[in-house]
Amino acid sequence: MGLQVAQIGEGALIAALGEIFGHSGQLGQSGQVELSQNLNNQKKLLFGIGDDGAVLAPSALATVATMDLAIEDVHFKTDWSTAKQIGAKVAVANIADIYAMGGEPHSLLVGISLTGQEELEWVLDLARGIAEEAKKVGAQVIGGDTVRGEKITIAITALGNTSEPIYRSGAKVGDQLVISGLPGASAAGLALLKADKRELFPEIVNAHLQPSVDGKKAHSLISAGATALCDLSDGLLVDVTRISEASGVGIKIDLDHLNLSSLIEAGTTLAVDPMSWVLTSGEEHLFIATLPPSAALPEGALQIGEVIHGAGVEVFGKFSDARTSDKNTWQHFEK
Amino acid sequence: MGLQVAQIGEGALIAALGEIFGHSGQLGQSGQVELSQNLNNQKKLLFGIGDDGAVLAPSALATVATMDLAIEDVHFKTDWSTAKQIGAKVAVANIADIYAMGGEPHSLLVGISLTGQEELEWVLDLARGIAEEAKKVGAQVIGGDTVRGEKITIAITALGNTSEPIYRSGAKVGDQLVISGLPGASAAGLALLKADKRELFPEIVNAHLQPSVDGKKAHSLISAGATALCDLSDGLLVDVTRISEASGVGIKIDLDHLNLSSLIEAGTTLAVDPMSWVLTSGEEHLFIATLPPSAALPEGALQIGEVIHGAGVEVFGKFSDARTSDKNTWQHFEK
Repeated sequence: MGLQVAQIGEGALIAALGEIFGHSGQLGQSGQVELSQNLNNQKKLLFGIGDDGAVLAPSALATVATMDLAIEDVHFKTDWSTAKQIGAKVAVANIADIYAMGGEPHSLLVGISLTGQEELEWVLDLARGIAEEAKKVGAQVIGGDTVRGEKITIAITALGNTSEPIYRSGAKVGDQLVISGLPGASAAGLALLKADKRELFPEIVNAHLQPSVDGKKAHSLISAGATALCDLSDGLLVDVTRISEASGVGIKIDLDHLNLSSLIEAGTTLAVDPMSWVLTSGEEHLFIATLPPSAALPEGALQIGEVIHGAGVEVFGKFSDARTSDKNTWQHFEK
Repeated sequence: MGLQVAQIGEGALIAALGEIFGHSGQLGQSGQVELSQNLNNQKKLLFGIGDDGAVLAPSALATVATMDLAIEDVHFKTDWSTAKQIGAKVAVANIADIYAMGGEPHSLLVGISLTGQEELEWVLDLARGIAEEAKKVGAQVIGGDTVRGEKITIAITALGNTSEPIYRSGAKVGDQLVISGLPGASAAGLALLKADKRELFPEIVNAHLQPSVDGKKAHSLISAGATALCDLSDGLLVDVTRISEASGVGIKIDLDHLNLSSLIEAGTTLAVDPMSWVLTSGEEHLFIATLPPSAALPEGALQIGEVIHGAGVEVFGKFSDARTSDKNTWQHFEK
């Protein structure tokens, strides 16, 4: 048993976290130094951790801001996930939201509530998981808060730049509905964990425990002319319904042509129709977009439907949910 | 017993919160509308609640960003505080951090974890408390997250503009140490609550339950030439020590001339030396600054010491803490 957080005190914890996050606010004589400059994201950090707030230099681009909370035993279990996986997962959820707005993430604020009983190394690994995901996308942790609480809680705010935000509301009748990859693995992974069968399909389980986000997938959808864009955070049906509602259009999803081979074996093992995972799996951070009718599909992207007149989301495909067995459609899905 | 949060569903809750926060992302044909413009703070919100993230227009000013978490039974008790007070308190803590950096708050992101057993009206009052404090300072809630958890948790990120950030690190030898008012009421209020004597001193108790922040106090310290600035969030000794450490200077605090009359009666009631409240009371969001030797004190501000060569914080004054009774000084205070 290593050192526990409660044994080292808040000051030492914050100092250790500051080292992992790669900088702290050491100022020179002038009162201001440029701690880092993220050239890709065109955002300069004037001051990071160590004062009442972080300071970011002005930029000619608009700012995208988002926040997600994750709570022990609701959003993650310390039995199932390593600390690094937990940190990475919450960071990725926020980073994906920035990409989903047509932005480039540059900064994270991280609030962590700890019981005090955690081993220090566990907490530092949590921070490393966050810092590594930030670094992958050219972002960094610029501040936050650490407090005590009965359950481990992680709050992350991501900030990004955008020259042209892309909303959920721009879908036009006739547009193609496109997703950047096959969804379902996160829900399948969770089902495998619950059934205590994680060792059978480690890759699928990993998609649940440590989802990744690929900003290039968002970029390629934007380059293809995306009229609406979001990430897959709450499940295909929920997220497509949001595009439909925000854009004031109907959306027809046709899943007949999807290749579910990567999920079939796990479905058989658990006696679950993998199509139900495709429809409801969230926290995968694939990107859903509507593209103009003539747009070429980016590599790896799948066309799964089209935007139609009207309202609501209709789903066509072969699946065996009790609710749909007589018609093979779901209509006007509501959460 | 009114309607509980769990009975209305996430979508309806978010919609109700969006109404309180005063806007949602209703976009026009163009895909972008200007939802609000905060002229004082020179920050334009392009899109608020209702997409993957909020979007703020570019500005010629630097951005200040801060985050605070507050957790039920650690930072607040629902027995002691109304929902509005809880929301207001967390909002004020974040807003004060923006002022303490020399900034003007313009936007809040609000993450709330709820058990689901809360009455809807309680949650809406929590949101109203946040929204009202934001409005008082010309800011608004632009986004956030709502999740389930065993304890009510509130995470707020505040964003602000600044033309010239002020750090803790700028204190110079010879500077005056100044505070924008007499601290102590928050700690006194907490002590009264714990002793079940809240009805005796309602104003003092209220200073704990619903602290306020006055940005004008920060402005006047900045106008007076503040070389270092922070808010009183963790107690005078802790916060002054941070200035000392960040600036690489010693600080001498002399509390002999302070007028503690507003705290004396409560101190007598609880058999506590009110000076201990002055030294340790946090969450009051007064402002602590160092001012050049010749600077005139802003109205209401109190000079409580000076910046000296060396390191550490020395406190002089008449108080009766067991640790100090032989010398009447605290030296090199450590939390």
